[in-house]
Amino acid sequence: METSSAPWVTYVPELKVLDCTVRDGGLINDHRFGDDFVRAVYDACVASGIDYMEIGYKASRTVFAPARYGDWKFCTEEQMRRIVGDNPSDLKLAAMADAGKTDWRTDIAPKSQSVLDMIRVACYIHQIPEAIDMIADAADKGYEVCCNIMAISTVQDAEIDQALELLRDSAAGTVVVVDSFGSLNPEQVRLLVDRYRKALDGTGKEVGIHAHNNMQLAFANTIEAIIHGATRVDGTMAGLGRGAGNCPMELLLGLLRNPKFRIRPVWELIQNHLLPLQRELDWGPSPQYNITGQMNQHPRAAIEARAGDLKDRPLEFYDKIVADI
Amino acid sequence: METSSAPWVTYVPELKVLDCTVRDGGLINDHRFGDDFVRAVYDACVASGIDYMEIGYKASRTVFAPARYGDWKFCTEEQMRRIVGDNPSDLKLAAMADAGKTDWRTDIAPKSQSVLDMIRVACYIHQIPEAIDMIADAADKGYEVCCNIMAISTVQDAEIDQALELLRDSAAGTVVVVDSFGSLNPEQVRLLVDRYRKALDGTGKEVGIHAHNNMQLAFANTIEAIIHGATRVDGTMAGLGRGAGNCPMELLLGLLRNPKFRIRPVWELIQNHLLPLQRELDWGPSPQYNITGQMNQHPRAAIEARAGDLKDRPLEFYDKIVADI
Repeated sequence: METSSAPWVTYVPELKVLDCTVRDGGLINDHRFGDDFVRAVYDACVASGIDYMEIGYKASRTVFAPARYGDWKFCTEEQMRRIVGDNPSDLKLAAMADAGKTDWRTDIAPKSQSVLDMIRVACYIHQIPEAIDMIADAADKGYEVCCNIMAISTVQDAEIDQALELLRDSAAGTVVVVDSFGSLNPEQVRLLVDRYRKALDGTGKEVGIHAHNNMQLAFANTIEAIIHGATRVDGTMAGLGRGAGNCPMELLLGLLRNPKFRIRPVWELIQNHLLPLQRELDWGPSPQYNITGQMNQHPRAAIEARAGDLKDRPLEFYDKIVADI
Repeated sequence: METSSAPWVTYVPELKVLDCTVRDGGLINDHRFGDDFVRAVYDACVASGIDYMEIGYKASRTVFAPARYGDWKFCTEEQMRRIVGDNPSDLKLAAMADAGKTDWRTDIAPKSQSVLDMIRVACYIHQIPEAIDMIADAADKGYEVCCNIMAISTVQDAEIDQALELLRDSAAGTVVVVDSFGSLNPEQVRLLVDRYRKALDGTGKEVGIHAHNNMQLAFANTIEAIIHGATRVDGTMAGLGRGAGNCPMELLLGLLRNPKFRIRPVWELIQNHLLPLQRELDWGPSPQYNITGQMNQHPRAAIEARAGDLKDRPLEFYDKIVADI
């Protein structure tokens, strides 16, 4: 069917796309999206043939005071069903559960009682033991489970291998390469995807990619991951997400040739909801994010700089970052 | 020295960087940059260890009325020397000469009378015969010569091969893969760079890359070209350039590990000159450029849309482009 010179990039039948606009974008505004926005993202995901929508976090209401955050920090059944009803669509719904920040034993209901299809367990490398317990719990409750090891650009290979060894025996169906700092170049993504695939070989588990756009490489790194066998890929509408944002869905769907995907609903959403949001919220690959990405640092200093006097002063931000290392 | 897992990307000793901020950026504002700006770009190029600066075009003053354009459309010796004097630096100066738009026989002086070091002959594929004559003329006059075949994403392989066959026997020291429409993905760049290298094998000629950023792939495509042996790479400060702009120099120098390159002067220039310019001129990978890039079209419809009512209406622009094909 596909006659492109690079069929493995443009049409991988088993490739599944996850939209994490509301979940990752919520990190900019304490998850305070209005129902209209969340419903519009849901409708666009359904209309464009996207496979999964990650609607928010299942964060602990003891760690995080509900009064201080929007609904998408907690994703109770009531909150989710207010938007999606019983989700009478082919779109699967996911929520993220952070190790160390989630009352997962109590707050994640059995799948039979939930509108969620998948739990994405997120952890830093030192939290792998709790993540393993969380994965088992979610699988026992009937969910499809995914594991996102965050900030992977700061983790040594030996530790990655240990984590993958544990995840190999877990019930996680997908393990995602997560470049939280937007610091990886495509060569480094290739090495990581190869490493994950090799470690999970023969298990039937999928490898995913979650890229950040600090160096304008989120889309390219996603392409590179697909070429090297990642079959679960994350994107967000207009790249919305903390700091530099994520792989833009409009670029990703523009590349993929599988006719199940339709890009027009994404442009509609961007026109009606994301461009207006850009006037309120700051995200995208600005100079400060270029710099923390290049330095393999958490974006928090860049976020702070862009909210203050250093917004238009990348040179001074650069000098500060260099002085502090 | 270099212990990165990808030394071929991050430290290629023979890699040379060309800044085309003033030349490509001039396409946005009819080349009307003030002397302060051009001098600041020149100073930043010298200070950051960049190898070449392309200062503008050698356009015909009969085809283009000088009153309607800024100086950097024409680059007379007087205009250039007003900024660079006799260029007492290691930075080499280049100007672009477009086939069909240049009185090259008369307007390009012998190298001994010029502050220029290199002539970059730019042509569309059907102009290769004139480009061959221009290359011979510039080489005879004593210049280093480069050939940029533009809009390569629209050219059939057989024609590319014919052009490379002719260029193989020419005096051009470098042939550049030019993605004028910002339409190529890294896989396609790889195939083209491999094709150019193979065709020029054994001649000592270099292959270059000039990427546009319509799909946020300019930096990634430049990386991919470097991995596959391109040794002449173009960038612009803050990605300034027509439409979606070019590969951002601050990202490129942030990747390269050769200590001859210094990034701080680039951030200084961006803070003092490019961020202010962003308030006046529109460039960068906006939705309209995403769409023409995905469609492998010239950006002119996108440029028009962004100057008018469709600036905030990517859906309507998408519908218009789809209706017109």
